[in-house]
Amino acid sequence: MNGVKRPLTMKDIAKMAGVSTATVSRILNHNGRYSKETESRVKKLIEENNYVIDQTAKGLRKKYLETVGIIVPDITNPHFAKLVLNIQTSLFQRGYSSIIGNTNENLSLEEEHVHSLKAQHVCGFIMISTKRYHQSLRRFPTVYLDRPARGGEKEDITIESDNYKGGYLAGKQLGIASCKRLAIIRTNSNDCNQDSRKEGFLKALSEAGIPEEKVDVLDIGDALIQSAYSRIREEMRNGFLYDGLFCTTDTLATGVYTALREGNIKVPEEVKIVGFDDCDLAFTTGPGLTSVHQDVGKMAELAVDALVRRLTGEPLSSTHFYLPVYLSVRASTD
Amino acid sequence: MNGVKRPLTMKDIAKMAGVSTATVSRILNHNGRYSKETESRVKKLIEENNYVIDQTAKGLRKKYLETVGIIVPDITNPHFAKLVLNIQTSLFQRGYSSIIGNTNENLSLEEEHVHSLKAQHVCGFIMISTKRYHQSLRRFPTVYLDRPARGGEKEDITIESDNYKGGYLAGKQLGIASCKRLAIIRTNSNDCNQDSRKEGFLKALSEAGIPEEKVDVLDIGDALIQSAYSRIREEMRNGFLYDGLFCTTDTLATGVYTALREGNIKVPEEVKIVGFDDCDLAFTTGPGLTSVHQDVGKMAELAVDALVRRLTGEPLSSTHFYLPVYLSVRASTD
Repeated sequence: MNGVKRPLTMKDIAKMAGVSTATVSRILNHNGRYSKETESRVKKLIEENNYVIDQTAKGLRKKYLETVGIIVPDITNPHFAKLVLNIQTSLFQRGYSSIIGNTNENLSLEEEHVHSLKAQHVCGFIMISTKRYHQSLRRFPTVYLDRPARGGEKEDITIESDNYKGGYLAGKQLGIASCKRLAIIRTNSNDCNQDSRKEGFLKALSEAGIPEEKVDVLDIGDALIQSAYSRIREEMRNGFLYDGLFCTTDTLATGVYTALREGNIKVPEEVKIVGFDDCDLAFTTGPGLTSVHQDVGKMAELAVDALVRRLTGEPLSSTHFYLPVYLSVRASTD
Repeated sequence: MNGVKRPLTMKDIAKMAGVSTATVSRILNHNGRYSKETESRVKKLIEENNYVIDQTAKGLRKKYLETVGIIVPDITNPHFAKLVLNIQTSLFQRGYSSIIGNTNENLSLEEEHVHSLKAQHVCGFIMISTKRYHQSLRRFPTVYLDRPARGGEKEDITIESDNYKGGYLAGKQLGIASCKRLAIIRTNSNDCNQDSRKEGFLKALSEAGIPEEKVDVLDIGDALIQSAYSRIREEMRNGFLYDGLFCTTDTLATGVYTALREGNIKVPEEVKIVGFDDCDLAFTTGPGLTSVHQDVGKMAELAVDALVRRLTGEPLSSTHFYLPVYLSVRASTD
């Protein structure tokens, strides 16, 4: 399109793609009645030519896409950031816009977001909730992700990873590695999936002949890298006791790693570590972190599918989904 | 509050705090006329008792807080995640709610978010823009962060770090370390701050007697860890040529690190690396990454202050702010 000085119009895009302007409009509005092939051709042209939708051509499009509210406890946690990115992408493919309310695990802020987004007419919620259930969202299209709706009703949709199994796999791994002095590093900012992970872990250890009393539990106030780092630095002042650690999130594991590295304690030679989430941090940390893999892509897809079914009145096969997990084994337990 | 079975009301909280119901309401609405001490006492009680704002008590509070739209290119980049978290916290302290539109550096998605959020009556925007300027936001309260409004007008507010200076500091550091074969690893997904960082870097090298032609530029399609990782793995197939790298984001540096580690190339002994952003990744990677520090706290504060001034009609001292940067020196250049 060299030589074209005026901004591109929908007509230009239609001409380039060899389709009608109405087809381009339908594609922009996710409005059906076009082939996948046409859609991808048109979208490619839009992308390549930096075509900007003409805001004044209102007659040609809906006022705006229907919008879903996403509630998330902490976007600085790479696991949640990736999960939210997947949700947004999947929603957009299904023809929904989305906006994010970040709660910082703060109950009042979560309330405020729910209230404010509802007042702004979002059509539904995908909710990683600190509060765990919102009475005000009773019968409002809502999917509870990662943390089941507590005190909710039968028809509330929950999607979560098999956290118990994840903890169990972590315990097996440290048991096989013959660790003797073990600790769980966990956050006490939410009770549900943290408890299941701990229970699964203890079950595997008891099978390996290690009783619960032999396993210390270090509760960190939140799941921040910095908080785990500070706590382990503190522990190290009296000499570091452990040779096996199960960190219930990769962020906690990363804080632990950083503190051990500064104290010249070698992973995995002196301390073996298993994380949970298998997010970018597990891959980039050195040496690589063995971590329980959660399938955030599948999680997002399921959540969006369930929400869209609620919105369109299509039936759901179930209201409670458990996603399988597996262990990504890397150098930290080798 | 043991024994209280019914849900707590605002009256209960007021009684516990020894203040009037109206005061509690004002605190919940960020409505002034109470002391810091009263505020913190009431908030503590709300937190401790899991008090949930009664949605039906509408007379007592505004319908909802005014909401600011935050546009961000990629929340999975820890630098942006932290910046957005800071913006949200700062807005909330000033009595504004906020919602996030994540664009994935995609122009159409950014357009869609701006259009949809405006239609949903956000009162203003804080915008880390891929498009760089929105005609539809002309005279609408908007702050352009990190990337100046291109093609905008004099009254448009821009806040950015001193990217040129940052690049210069990176060049100085690798020059002092006597690196001979240098490369810039940059993203070509946005042109503004990337170009300034490169120019500053080349300026420092030319002062050290290294001409521009001696510096390779590796353009990565985006700023994702995984993309930099794949590219460096590819480079390594023909033997790795460089002993000094300037990565224009910490995410790129992290991808480079991970690839070099897998190839048993030692940092800093064989290759020295400087990143940009000084986000969590620089702190947690091993060995620690020397990185140009951007003050995301200050950036957020300035952005919110400027936006609130626009919203309330208060005067601004300037419309273009440059924030100072400095080098956080860690093991990667030691």
